[in-house]
Amino acid sequence: MNAVTEDVARSLSRDLDTPQRVEALSAELRQAFPGSRRVYVEGTQPGVHVGMREITLTPTHGAETADAPVTVYDTSGAYTDPTAHIDLLAGLPALRAAWIEARGDTEQLGKLSSIYGRIRAADDKTRHLRFAHIRTPRRAKASANVTQMHYARRGIVTPEMEYIAIRENCRLAELRESYARSGYLKRMHKGERFGALLPDEVTPEFVRDEVACGRAIIPANINHPESEPMIIGRNFRVKVNANIGNSAVTSSIAEEVEKMVWATRWGGDTVMDLSTGKNIHETREWILRNSPVPIGTVPIYQALEKVDGKAEDLTWELFRDTLVEQAEQGVDYFTIHAGVLLRYIPWTAERMTGIVSRGGSIMAKWCLAHHEESFLYTHFEDICEIMKAYDVSFSLGDGLRPGSLADANDAAQMGELHTLGELTKVAWLHDVQVMIEGPGHVPMQLIKENMDEELKHCFEAPFYTLGPLTTDIAPGYDHITSAIGAANIGWYGCAMLCYVTPKEHLGLPDKDDVREGLVAYKIAAHAADLAKGHPAAQVRDNALSKARFEFRWIDQFNLGLDPEKAREFHDETLPQEGAKQAHFCSMCGPHFCSMKITQDVRDYAARIGRDANAALAAGMQEKAAEFRDSGAQLYQPAAPADTGHHA
Amino acid sequence: MNAVTEDVARSLSRDLDTPQRVEALSAELRQAFPGSRRVYVEGTQPGVHVGMREITLTPTHGAETADAPVTVYDTSGAYTDPTAHIDLLAGLPALRAAWIEARGDTEQLGKLSSIYGRIRAADDKTRHLRFAHIRTPRRAKASANVTQMHYARRGIVTPEMEYIAIRENCRLAELRESYARSGYLKRMHKGERFGALLPDEVTPEFVRDEVACGRAIIPANINHPESEPMIIGRNFRVKVNANIGNSAVTSSIAEEVEKMVWATRWGGDTVMDLSTGKNIHETREWILRNSPVPIGTVPIYQALEKVDGKAEDLTWELFRDTLVEQAEQGVDYFTIHAGVLLRYIPWTAERMTGIVSRGGSIMAKWCLAHHEESFLYTHFEDICEIMKAYDVSFSLGDGLRPGSLADANDAAQMGELHTLGELTKVAWLHDVQVMIEGPGHVPMQLIKENMDEELKHCFEAPFYTLGPLTTDIAPGYDHITSAIGAANIGWYGCAMLCYVTPKEHLGLPDKDDVREGLVAYKIAAHAADLAKGHPAAQVRDNALSKARFEFRWIDQFNLGLDPEKAREFHDETLPQEGAKQAHFCSMCGPHFCSMKITQDVRDYAARIGRDANAALAAGMQEKAAEFRDSGAQLYQPAAPADTGHHA
Repeated sequence: MNAVTEDVARSLSRDLDTPQRVEALSAELRQAFPGSRRVYVEGTQPGVHVGMREITLTPTHGAETADAPVTVYDTSGAYTDPTAHIDLLAGLPALRAAWIEARGDTEQLGKLSSIYGRIRAADDKTRHLRFAHIRTPRRAKASANVTQMHYARRGIVTPEMEYIAIRENCRLAELRESYARSGYLKRMHKGERFGALLPDEVTPEFVRDEVACGRAIIPANINHPESEPMIIGRNFRVKVNANIGNSAVTSSIAEEVEKMVWATRWGGDTVMDLSTGKNIHETREWILRNSPVPIGTVPIYQALEKVDGKAEDLTWELFRDTLVEQAEQGVDYFTIHAGVLLRYIPWTAERMTGIVSRGGSIMAKWCLAHHEESFLYTHFEDICEIMKAYDVSFSLGDGLRPGSLADANDAAQMGELHTLGELTKVAWLHDVQVMIEGPGHVPMQLIKENMDEELKHCFEAPFYTLGPLTTDIAPGYDHITSAIGAANIGWYGCAMLCYVTPKEHLGLPDKDDVREGLVAYKIAAHAADLAKGHPAAQVRDNALSKARFEFRWIDQFNLGLDPEKAREFHDETLPQEGAKQAHFCSMCGPHFCSMKITQDVRDYAARIGRDANAALAAGMQEKAAEFRDSGAQLYQPAAPADTGHHA
Repeated sequence: MNAVTEDVARSLSRDLDTPQRVEALSAELRQAFPGSRRVYVEGTQPGVHVGMREITLTPTHGAETADAPVTVYDTSGAYTDPTAHIDLLAGLPALRAAWIEARGDTEQLGKLSSIYGRIRAADDKTRHLRFAHIRTPRRAKASANVTQMHYARRGIVTPEMEYIAIRENCRLAELRESYARSGYLKRMHKGERFGALLPDEVTPEFVRDEVACGRAIIPANINHPESEPMIIGRNFRVKVNANIGNSAVTSSIAEEVEKMVWATRWGGDTVMDLSTGKNIHETREWILRNSPVPIGTVPIYQALEKVDGKAEDLTWELFRDTLVEQAEQGVDYFTIHAGVLLRYIPWTAERMTGIVSRGGSIMAKWCLAHHEESFLYTHFEDICEIMKAYDVSFSLGDGLRPGSLADANDAAQMGELHTLGELTKVAWLHDVQVMIEGPGHVPMQLIKENMDEELKHCFEAPFYTLGPLTTDIAPGYDHITSAIGAANIGWYGCAMLCYVTPKEHLGLPDKDDVREGLVAYKIAAHAADLAKGHPAAQVRDNALSKARFEFRWIDQFNLGLDPEKAREFHDETLPQEGAKQAHFCSMCGPHFCSMKITQDVRDYAARIGRDANAALAAGMQEKAAEFRDSGAQLYQPAAPADTGHHA
C-alpha cells in the first residue's frame, strides 16, 4: 500500500467507517440557502415531483406585506431540504427507479458485466473503500433501446420529459400574476436569439420533440436513478458543468463526494468526475450513489490507468470493458474523443501548444504508435450499442481543441469538428443522444464561428464548451477570462458551459475554487439566458433590483447567487444588524445614497403628473417652492443599530 | 474634531509626521514584479523618457538561451523602479513641467484662485493633514488655450503626444524580429474592429490627429505635471479606470494614497478620487502629487459637502469655485453631469431603480427644487473656459444611466446621451477635450446599441463605461458580471472601462478588492484589444502560452497579470521549487500531462515530415514501430526537488 492509498484509507476510516460516517458531509452542505426553502411541484405522471427553490422576501419598510417569493431553478437536490434524510452510505433515493422499471424494456442483471468491475468487487484490498449498497446493474433487454431519444422518436413523453418541462418553467405561468403585481415583469427585454426558439412555456411535448430531433439531450443512465432529470439544449436554460476528481498527486474519496455535493449546491447542472488517481472505480460509485445531477466521465482516463499509463497498450477490448464497467455504475455521459483522426494529428505539430486535451493526446499517441485510426472511431457503432443499452449520452470530445489563443479555429480543430458531425449522424441512427464538446481558448471575435460551424456541421446537436478563455495572460483568474467567452458562446447558442476555476493551469481546485468557478459560470449562463430573452430569466434580476432600490438588504443578499458572500462583504464595513435596514451602505455613506434621492424624485414626478413638458410650459415655480418646502427631511435616519429584526 | 477626523489625524501622525513617513507605503508597493524591470525608451523631444515593463524569461530545459523578453505597457510609474527615490512628502518628479513651461502660454499664479482653496490653505485645524510642498498653481495666460486638443488642431505634436505614441507601441517595431524568432507572432488573428482604425505602429502624428478630431483625449492638467501622458480613444489600447475615495463611514488619507499607488500597480490607467467624506481637499492633494496617472473627480460631490448635503442650496458660483479649486490642484478630468435636463427627469419615475448616479440624482434634485435647467447646462460654456485654462478634460457624466437591467437603454438614458452629444460639440468649439460616460447595467444583447448610439450622437468622442453589468443577480461578484459586459463593449469600441470591484453595491472596496477589480478589468480590456486585432496584443498571450507548453512555470507566472497569485495557487499543491521545473502540475499528475504527450506527437510529426497523407498512403508500420521503440521514456522525471535554480 503506497502513501497515497494509505492517505485515502486513513481519511475514509476517519470519515466513513464509524457510526458518524453518515454525517461525513460538512454541516454547511446541509443548510438551506438563507430565506429559501425547497418546494416541490407535482406532475401528472406518477412520481413526478419536481424540486425547486423558493426565495421568500421581506416587506418594504412600512409595508405590511412582502413582494411575491421568487422561484428559481435548483440543482442542489435533497441536500438543501432540511426535512430530507441524507445517508451517504445508503445513497440518495432512486427517484427514477419506478419509471425505468415500468417501461419494461430493461432487466436487472445477476452480476456485473465488466471483467474489471467483477475484479474490483472481489478485491479484498479495496473492500474498506467500497460503497456498501452497490445495486446489481440494469441493462436493456436484448435488442431493446432504452435511450430518451428512442422514446422521443416513438412519440413517448417519458416522466423524465415531464419533469424537465416543469423544472425549466420554474412555475412562471402560475406565478406570472403575482410576479406582475410585484413588478418583476417590468421591461422584460427582447432577446437576440441567433435562431434559438425559446417557448413562453416549456411543455413535455416540446421537450420530447427537441430530444427526438437531437437538438437536446437528457443524460439519464438507467443505472443512475438517483439523478433529477435535466436537459441540455439551446432552446432551454443554459447549463453549467463542474469538473471534480482526484489525481495521483492529491485528494481523497471523501473529498470528492463532498466536492460533488458542494458543486450541486453552487449550481452545477452536471458534474464530471475526471479522477485519474487511485481507486477511481470506488470513488465514482460513491459519487454516483449520492449525486442528484448527471455524472459525466472520460473513460479513456481509467482505461489508461489500467495499462499503467502506456497509451500504446490500450485496446478496444479493454476500453469496451471500461465503458461497460462505468455504464453499469450509472455514468450519464461519456466523453469519447472519437474525432482524433490520424490525418489531423500532423496538423497540430505547428501549433503553439499542440494537443492539450488529455483524452485527445492519449488517442493521438495511440494512433501514432499503431498507425491506425483509433478504436474509438473504428468501433464507434459498437460503442453506440453500449450507449443505447444503458442510455449513456455521448459527449463527443474535442481532442484537438486549441490550448492557446494562437491555435484557435485552426484546421485540426475544424477538421475534428466535421468528423464529430459525421459521428453524430451515426449515433442518431442508433437513437443515441449526442452533445459536442468545444473549445477552449478563443479570442472573442472568433467565438461565433465556433458556434456557427458546430450548428452547421453537427446538425444542431447541443454544444458543450470549456469556457472559452478569451485571453491567455491571466493564470489565477481563468474563471474570469473564460466566463467572458462562456457568456458570449452561451448567448450564441451553446447549451452547456464547462466551468473553469481560478486554479486552471495551476493546480487542482479546492472547495473555494469550485464555488468561485461555479458562481462565475452561473453568471455567464444567466447572462446568456438574458441576452437570448429567456422568458423567465429577468424575473430574478428585477426582483433583486427592486430589493436593492428599496434597501431590503437581506432580500438583495438572498436573491443573489451567493447570499453568504454578499452578506459577508456588506458586513465587513457595516456589521450591525441595524445597517441592514439602513438607507445607505458604506460605499456612499448616509448623505450620498442616490437610491434615496431617487425616491424623492419619484414622489415629486408623481405629484406633477406625467406630462412634464406641459407642466414646464405652464411654469412650475410654485411646484418648485412646494418641493423645497417639503424637502426638509430628505434623508431618513437609519434604524438604530440595536433594533434589527432580521436575524 | 470628530471621531473620523481624529482617526485620520492619528493615522497621519503615525505614518507621515515622523522621519519614517517617506516610507509610509507598504513595502509590497515598491517591489518590481517578479522577473520584470522598468525600462525607458527615449523620444526625440527633450525629456520624453517613456517607462515600460520588460519581462525577462528563462531558458527552456536544456536550451542555452532564453526566448526574447516581452515588453508590456506599464501604469505603475516609478514605484516599481527600485532605483527611483520615492518620497511621498515631496511627491513624484514633475515630468511634464519643462514641456508646459516651454510652451509659454501659461503663468505661475501668485496665489490660489479659488476662495475655498485659500480658506483651506489658511486653515490651522487641517494644517497637520496638509501636503507639505503645495506648488503655486499654473493657469493659461489671458485668452490662451492650453488644451492638447488646441495644440493638435494647430498641427503641433506636443511632447505628450510623442510620449504616448512610444508608450502605445511598447517597442513592437524594434522587437518584431526577436519576437518573431521566439514565435510570439505566430497566428496573430485578424480582428473584428467595428470601424476602429488601429495602425500597425502609432506615430506622434497619428496621436495628434486623433486628438484634433476629438476621437481621443489626453487627460493632462497643467497642474498635474507628475503624470505620465496616456491617451483614451478607440484607436488605441483599451484603458481601465479604478475608483478610490473615502466616505463619511470609513477610510483615511493614508489609505487612499496607498490605494492609488496600489491601483496603478495593478494596471489602473487613470484613477478617480470619489471621496465624499472629510478632508477631501487635502486627500486629493496627496493623491495628485504622488500619482503617475491622470486623476479624475466628480466636483459636484465636494460642492455638495460645502452646502452640508443640501442639493437645493448648490449654486453656480460655489460650483465654479470648486472647479477652479480642483483644476488648480491638478485634476485631469471632471465628471460633469450636464446632460440631466429637467424634461428627462420624469422619465425616470417609472424606472425599476430610478436615478442611480450620485451626481445625476444630486442634479435632478436641484433641478426639481428650482425648476430650472441645472447650472451645469446653463453655464456649460463658462465651464469650458475653466477647462481650457488648465486643460481639464470633460468626462460628460451619464447621470441617468440605468441602475438595473430593466432600465437599460430607456428613453431617459438615450435622451441624456443626445444632450451629451450637443454638449460635446460646444466643448469642441472651445477645443476642450471630451469623453462620454456610459452605463452601467445592460444585458448583453443591448450593449452594442449603447456603443453605436454613442458613436453616432456624440460624434466618436471616446466612450467611457462603468462595466456594464450583464446581470443583477450576483452581488459579491459584480467584477465578473461586469467584466463580461466590459469586454464586449471594449470590443465594440469603448475606449476606457471603469472597473467594478467585488464589493460593488455592498460596501467600500479594500486593497484586495481593488486588485481583484483591476485584474478583472485588465482581462476585459486585453480581451477587447485581442478581439479588435490590436497589433501588439497577442504577443503576450503567445509568449505565455509557449512558456506553458514548455513547462516554464516561472515564466508562465511572470507573464501573467498577477504573477504572485499564479505562483501562490501553483504552490498550494506543489510547493517545492523543483515542481516549478516539473513537466506536470497537480491538476493532472505526472502521467496525464497532455502538454508532455503533445511534445512526443510533435517530435514524431517532425520525423515523418509534413506530408502526412502521403506517408499514410505509403504505409507507416515501420515508423509506428520506431515510435513505439523510442517511447520507452515518455515522461521525463521532474528535476529533483532540491535543485530548483529559479528562485
